Amino acid sequence: MQLCRTVAEVRSLRPKFARLGFVPTMGYLHEGHLRLVRRAKAACGAAAVSIFVNPIQFAADDDLERYPRDLARDLALAEAAGTDFVFAPEAGELYPRGFTTRVDVGLTEGAENRARPGHFAGVATVVTKLFNIIQPSLAVFGQKDAEQAAVIRKLARDLDLGIKIEIAPTAREADGLAMSSRNSYLTPSERAAAVVLSRALQAAEFAFAQGERDPAVLRARALTVLAAEPLARVDYVAVADPDTLNPLSLPAERILLSLAARIGATRLIDNTVLG
Amino acid sequence: MQLCRTVAEVRSLRPKFARLGFVPTMGYLHEGHLRLVRRAKAACGAAAVSIFVNPIQFAADDDLERYPRDLARDLALAEAAGTDFVFAPEAGELYPRGFTTRVDVGLTEGAENRARPGHFAGVATVVTKLFNIIQPSLAVFGQKDAEQAAVIRKLARDLDLGIKIEIAPTAREADGLAMSSRNSYLTPSERAAAVVLSRALQAAEFAFAQGERDPAVLRARALTVLAAEPLARVDYVAVADPDTLNPLSLPAERILLSLAARIGATRLIDNTVLG
Repeated sequence: MQLCRTVAEVRSLRPKFARLGFVPTMGYLHEGHLRLVRRAKAACGAAAVSIFVNPIQFAADDDLERYPRDLARDLALAEAAGTDFVFAPEAGELYPRGFTTRVDVGLTEGAENRARPGHFAGVATVVTKLFNIIQPSLAVFGQKDAEQAAVIRKLARDLDLGIKIEIAPTAREADGLAMSSRNSYLTPSERAAAVVLSRALQAAEFAFAQGERDPAVLRARALTVLAAEPLARVDYVAVADPDTLNPLSLPAERILLSLAARIGATRLIDNTVLG
Repeated sequence: MQLCRTVAEVRSLRPKFARLGFVPTMGYLHEGHLRLVRRAKAACGAAAVSIFVNPIQFAADDDLERYPRDLARDLALAEAAGTDFVFAPEAGELYPRGFTTRVDVGLTEGAENRARPGHFAGVATVVTKLFNIIQPSLAVFGQKDAEQAAVIRKLARDLDLGIKIEIAPTAREADGLAMSSRNSYLTPSERAAAVVLSRALQAAEFAFAQGERDPAVLRARALTVLAAEPLARVDYVAVADPDTLNPLSLPAERILLSLAARIGATRLIDNTVLG
């Protein structure tokens, strides 16, 4: 496995691979990331991983500085999962002085977009850059970031990227907690409480399976579960169209139920697509 | 020469060419365009031309509807200049229902950007799409659209497009008028008056050659010439840094002097880089 630190290194390496699957990450890899890498490798015969904590998708009061990093461990995990090369640039390599460009797909109605203004323009911008640098045939993302998945699908379609986008199911711990690099922030008691996010989704899934189609009722089921956990502070529970991210008020057969909550100081997100 | 109407046709044709030079146009081709095509062909051995009047770079009160179109003539001219294929999509092919994405390079200070809010985001968006569809090695633009040239250079750099951008000198009629598809709007008396734009630039070039470096003085020279033409209404005369497009007030060794004026109902632009 090769480690590339510069765009030029990637450009000189890229022609060695006919087809290439790509997994963009912010590092601190967990089993969720590694499943995406194995999928990319199986689909294309070669896999690239980027490790880059993208400053322009963090707001001033976000956790950019404390976001967990461990490149040596990430490289070992990526290699074991079959990665052919890792692209891990410094911030100055992707954002030299004078960088001002933004790519914005305009999915403005999503709850996460409203909670984090500018976040998804930062995501779409870095992903456009990474796609242009890596030139993958396929890129694999996790469903855990449901709005990000919708943004990337729209980006690929609207800008004619010619790259197949695959969204893989959320990887979960044994108790149901969605895997996330940010779980490393949690104290043991917070870790125990964090299971409430997936429990809240399960309550809505159960109601949906019983025939409930009213988005307001499904949302209330999830909220009730969250409210019962004293360590959780709800940021939002949202019911939306999975593609447009527009809020749903009328009964629907496909509903993105997504939520964000703080467990102590750590903001976690999770979601499920009903139907 | 082949005519492609859809993205899929371009994608199936593209592998036939190892290197490909590309000239994006809005059609109604003139000698200025054809020089760009010949340059693209000479540099890469193959040339593609797009013909697309891009709706998202026009404001509601712009000339989108009356913009001149003559595809049959354009195809004959493109073929004679050595074009290998033309991509001339319908608007719905590039902007299907639900299209919302914008690419904005953030060069906000340019005079043309201030005169036409949103114009360059429309340009950067369609050029990003066209680049992704055509996948050229080189793209050639004209210096006549000086701010567009700065926008495209920044786009290629900021988004790591891996495409060489070449800016060719403005092609001019015998009397100095910059070639433009919009010149076809001019009545004979307006056509005679339109030469005042290039004359105004020449007055500033003369002063610069004499040693004048004060942007305000150079701007005044151009304004004086424009003001003497009764058929011309000045939109702006601007002195700016050629790369950042920031207005200049202190003496400088490289100055983009650009201007826009209405001759009758027709808005024309021209520019020169001093130094």
